[in-house]
Amino acid sequence: MRQEGIIIVISAPSGAGKTTLCRELIKKCPDIKESVSYTTRSPREGEIDGLDYFFVSRDEFGAMIGNNAFAEWAEVHGNLYGTALDTLDEARRKGYDIILDIDCQGAMKLKEYFEGGIYIFILPPSMDELRRRLENRSSDSREVIERRIERAKDEIKEAKWYDYIIINDNIDAAFDELSAIILAQRRKTSRMLEKIVKLFEI
Amino acid sequence: MRQEGIIIVISAPSGAGKTTLCRELIKKCPDIKESVSYTTRSPREGEIDGLDYFFVSRDEFGAMIGNNAFAEWAEVHGNLYGTALDTLDEARRKGYDIILDIDCQGAMKLKEYFEGGIYIFILPPSMDELRRRLENRSSDSREVIERRIERAKDEIKEAKWYDYIIINDNIDAAFDELSAIILAQRRKTSRMLEKIVKLFEI
Repeated sequence: MRQEGIIIVISAPSGAGKTTLCRELIKKCPDIKESVSYTTRSPREGEIDGLDYFFVSRDEFGAMIGNNAFAEWAEVHGNLYGTALDTLDEARRKGYDIILDIDCQGAMKLKEYFEGGIYIFILPPSMDELRRRLENRSSDSREVIERRIERAKDEIKEAKWYDYIIINDNIDAAFDELSAIILAQRRKTSRMLEKIVKLFEI
Repeated sequence: MRQEGIIIVISAPSGAGKTTLCRELIKKCPDIKESVSYTTRSPREGEIDGLDYFFVSRDEFGAMIGNNAFAEWAEVHGNLYGTALDTLDEARRKGYDIILDIDCQGAMKLKEYFEGGIYIFILPPSMDELRRRLENRSSDSREVIERRIERAKDEIKEAKWYDYIIINDNIDAAFDELSAIILAQRRKTSRMLEKIVKLFEI
C-alpha cells in the first residue's frame, strides 16, 4: 500500500503573508501540490480557471453542495469557496502531499470531517504591522482595510485550535518554519513504519 | 509563567550516527543543552567528569536509585546509566530545551514517567551499512562488532513506539531532519499560545 499524502491546511488573516509562503513552498517543493478550490467569485485579472480556482456559478456550487461533493465550503465576503472531496481523495490515494489555503471556517469544517491533516496558522508579528502591510497594498480602499482588520481580529482568536502557529515577522524565517513543520510530519513514525519494516524486516 | 523546556530523547543503535548528530545539534543550537547522565562505567581517555558523564561508583548509583533520584536508568553491557530527575526538572523550570542521548530501555522508562517529551529514533540506511560503519571504526574487535549488530537488531524493533524516525543515510540531511523536528515542536500551538495571547490580547 502506498503511503497516504499529507493534507496541509494553512489559514491566516489577510496580510499575514500566507499567499507568499504557499507560493514559495510550491516552488521549492515540487512534491507538494496546491489544492485548487472552487469559488463563485469572479476571476481577477490574470487568474486562470483550473489553476487559481475552479470558477463556477452559484447554481453549480449549490449543486455540488447538494451532491456532498465538498470536504469543506464556506462563505467569505459574500462569495462561496470550497474544497472538493475528490481533490483530497486523489492526493491521499496517489500519495502526494497537498496544501490547502483556506479560511478558518473551512478549516474547522475540514478538521471535523478529515482525520490526519495538519493545521497551520500564520500570524503577523502584531496588529500594527498587519495594518501597515494592508495599507502598503495600494490596491485596497480604506474601507476594505478596516474590514480586513476587524475580520483579522476575529480570525486570530481561531489560531488556538490549529496544530502549529507561525509568526511571520521575517519571510525567510517563516518559510523555514513552515518547511520544518512539513518535514517533521513526514518523519513521524506512522509515516516511516512501512519503510523501516521493509528495510529491516522487523 | 515561563514556557517549559522541551525534553528531546534520542536513541539509536551503535553506528547509526547519533553521537555525531547530537554534537552537531549542541554546536549549532546553543539554546539546546545536553543532558549529562550518571554512569558506573570507567571514564574513557579524554572524558571529563561532569561534562561527558557524572562518573559514580556502583554504591553511589544504588543510593541514587534508592532515593528515587533518577527519571530513568538502565543497565547496558554490564554498566549502569541514568538521567537524574534534577537535570530534567531544571531544564523544564528554566525553560531551555534539553537533549537526552539514551538507550531504548531508558527511553521507555522515561516515556512512562514524563509527559510531553519527544522521542526520536535514528536508524542506519540498512544493516549492511551499519556493519560497514562498525567495521570502519578500528577501535572495536570482531566480537564487539557482532555483539553490537545483534543488539542493533533488537533495538531497531523498538523504533515503532518513538514519535519520529530519521534514517541517517547522509549526515547533512539527517541533521536537517533532526533540526526540523525540534523547530516544529517549538511552533506547536501549545508552546506558542502564551506568546500570541500577549501579542494580540486574545
